[in-house]
Amino acid sequence: MRKVVVLGATGSIGCQTLEVAARFPDKIRVVGLSAGSNISLVAEQTRQFGVRNVVLKDEKTAEEFRRFGFLDVEVLLGIDGLCRLASLSEADTVVNGLVGSLGLRPSLAALEAGKRLCLANKEALVMGGQLVLAAKKRGKGELVPIDSEHSALFQCLLAGGSRGVRRVFLTASGGPFLNWPKDEMLSAKPSDALKHPTWTMGKKITIDSATLFNKALEVIEAHFLFGLTPEQIEVVVHPQSIVHSLVEFADGSTMAQLGPPDMRIPIQYALSYPERWESPYGTFGPMSFGNLNFLPLDNEKFPSVKMAYRALQMGGTAPAVLAAADECAVGLYLEEKISFGEIFELVGEALEAHQPIESPTVEDIEGTERWARAFITDRVKVSV
Amino acid sequence: MRKVVVLGATGSIGCQTLEVAARFPDKIRVVGLSAGSNISLVAEQTRQFGVRNVVLKDEKTAEEFRRFGFLDVEVLLGIDGLCRLASLSEADTVVNGLVGSLGLRPSLAALEAGKRLCLANKEALVMGGQLVLAAKKRGKGELVPIDSEHSALFQCLLAGGSRGVRRVFLTASGGPFLNWPKDEMLSAKPSDALKHPTWTMGKKITIDSATLFNKALEVIEAHFLFGLTPEQIEVVVHPQSIVHSLVEFADGSTMAQLGPPDMRIPIQYALSYPERWESPYGTFGPMSFGNLNFLPLDNEKFPSVKMAYRALQMGGTAPAVLAAADECAVGLYLEEKISFGEIFELVGEALEAHQPIESPTVEDIEGTERWARAFITDRVKVSV
Repeated sequence: MRKVVVLGATGSIGCQTLEVAARFPDKIRVVGLSAGSNISLVAEQTRQFGVRNVVLKDEKTAEEFRRFGFLDVEVLLGIDGLCRLASLSEADTVVNGLVGSLGLRPSLAALEAGKRLCLANKEALVMGGQLVLAAKKRGKGELVPIDSEHSALFQCLLAGGSRGVRRVFLTASGGPFLNWPKDEMLSAKPSDALKHPTWTMGKKITIDSATLFNKALEVIEAHFLFGLTPEQIEVVVHPQSIVHSLVEFADGSTMAQLGPPDMRIPIQYALSYPERWESPYGTFGPMSFGNLNFLPLDNEKFPSVKMAYRALQMGGTAPAVLAAADECAVGLYLEEKISFGEIFELVGEALEAHQPIESPTVEDIEGTERWARAFITDRVKVSV
Repeated sequence: MRKVVVLGATGSIGCQTLEVAARFPDKIRVVGLSAGSNISLVAEQTRQFGVRNVVLKDEKTAEEFRRFGFLDVEVLLGIDGLCRLASLSEADTVVNGLVGSLGLRPSLAALEAGKRLCLANKEALVMGGQLVLAAKKRGKGELVPIDSEHSALFQCLLAGGSRGVRRVFLTASGGPFLNWPKDEMLSAKPSDALKHPTWTMGKKITIDSATLFNKALEVIEAHFLFGLTPEQIEVVVHPQSIVHSLVEFADGSTMAQLGPPDMRIPIQYALSYPERWESPYGTFGPMSFGNLNFLPLDNEKFPSVKMAYRALQMGGTAPAVLAAADECAVGLYLEEKISFGEIFELVGEALEAHQPIESPTVEDIEGTERWARAFITDRVKVSV
């Protein structure tokens, strides 16, 4: 029986995790939830799973939550609450579905406490890769990725061990602008960018799929997760989103993981690993694949992925700048304060303006994050 | 250091095994060879690898071999020699590249003696599946398939354990007649049938690829190798021969193994497993895949695969009839004594005429083989 804490329970990953949990009441027990502002939903989830530990944003939302009348639920607040929930003694597994840099400290807490961390939050590894690996080692925690690409690599690597890896290929759908002329893309509206061709996800990650900054972050994640050099990580466009990623081994053999674009599959796998549990997500044989094809990435049109390699080359806090600057720029884009093309420009400028700190502490990373946000907002103010 | 015996050293698999061995002199030492009639080649191989144990067909070929002047080479003869070579105390690994039913007894000998059996010979498992599994268990031998499809399944299964398997898909190129009208195929000449679109192999297996009897035999092999029910094994046409097979797990996740159609890769893997050794068989990223697609098999045009399921349903010696009848019919076809279409007819008739023996001994299987051959040749004589 896995005893699971779900961080970000009311988000897309959180809700799907609870859907999986509901399907396997004999294998999964939900012991903790965290939520931001969707109080009625987290109240419903708390009731459904009989959860006793809930973390909310602040006293105001906690008050709202208490109105649903949970007498035996312990409510904790904010980032400290998240870290305490992530290291809860009743839990052995933490699903981190938090959005953005908020995901770092709870990830460290979970690994330090020896939990299995099922990680959907990209920023934890991108911003704090070295810290995450150190916490995992210290606490003997386990790290299983949920991101479909990294889940695919994780599964492929089981067929060969990491020593025999030649290179890995992260697949990218190419997002909604794959076939748009570059000029039109640069001035695309959020409503266009939010139309992802194959996946249904949260807003921030959907915009990241349109800019391919999601792939940039994934390159950095793959580097830390699997101990790969930047040269071993390639990005390839695969418009069908069926092949979730590939590993080429030293002997010329390539392993691929395939499946319908449905996050419940990697979520369930992160919980069931090394077992596989029967799931009802449809029978999906090769005949349903259609034609699978792979195209080179247009790095000139999508300069985001090259920035990942640049950030890895700069090292230290540079990947944190990439993640924070992107998060900030996406927010401004969704508020229609900047154009689609300015996301690339602003993130690139922030990265180049940054002086990386070599072996950063959590505080250094959070400082870097603030610096990157301030850099971006200053630039936008100046240009207004 | 693997100490390797190569059975069928002068055949296609044998030569490629020795090519791999030559590339890894620090990892592989060849300690035994067997050959049929190509004496000058086996003499050259014996010299190149400094081999001390050689098995030849009969006294006549042995005499021819001795003329090359090997004073310190022990020469054994025939099937007894093959079995002694397969259990040679200096060896820990046996590559079985024998053609046809000759492969069964040496396979049993290798597994009984606790060797790693790298199996390219299909007939051993098809004809004597139960015996092979029993010998493996008794002798604590190890069985690693070389067939590209089964090597693919073997690798895919590492990502999930056999308990979580929903079904497997054996891919078939479809052979040279995939796009021929059925009528033309039924009267196709050997010269057409020997033109395989993607693989370069021996004659018998190339004809089997044209009839899809190779896929029929592979269904039976997969059943025994991986403990799969016939219902869990599907055949799918994949004209590019890039995806060598796929495994669908219970959770909806599918693993595939891909690579260029080059037998040296699965041969090397069978020797290196669980390691992966750097090999020079070309860099082959997703961009080289082109379009990958999968089509249903036309069971009406190619009735061979259905016969495999029928043979498994009949059980006992029925799969041996399928293999032996096919081997015999292919021989007659290559001698242009029967038409391409008659291969299907004759094998089907032999299968239906057979009374299976339930838990056969080696002698039962060999008796069945003789019966099937006699059945086929009698039919052909009658019809002449």
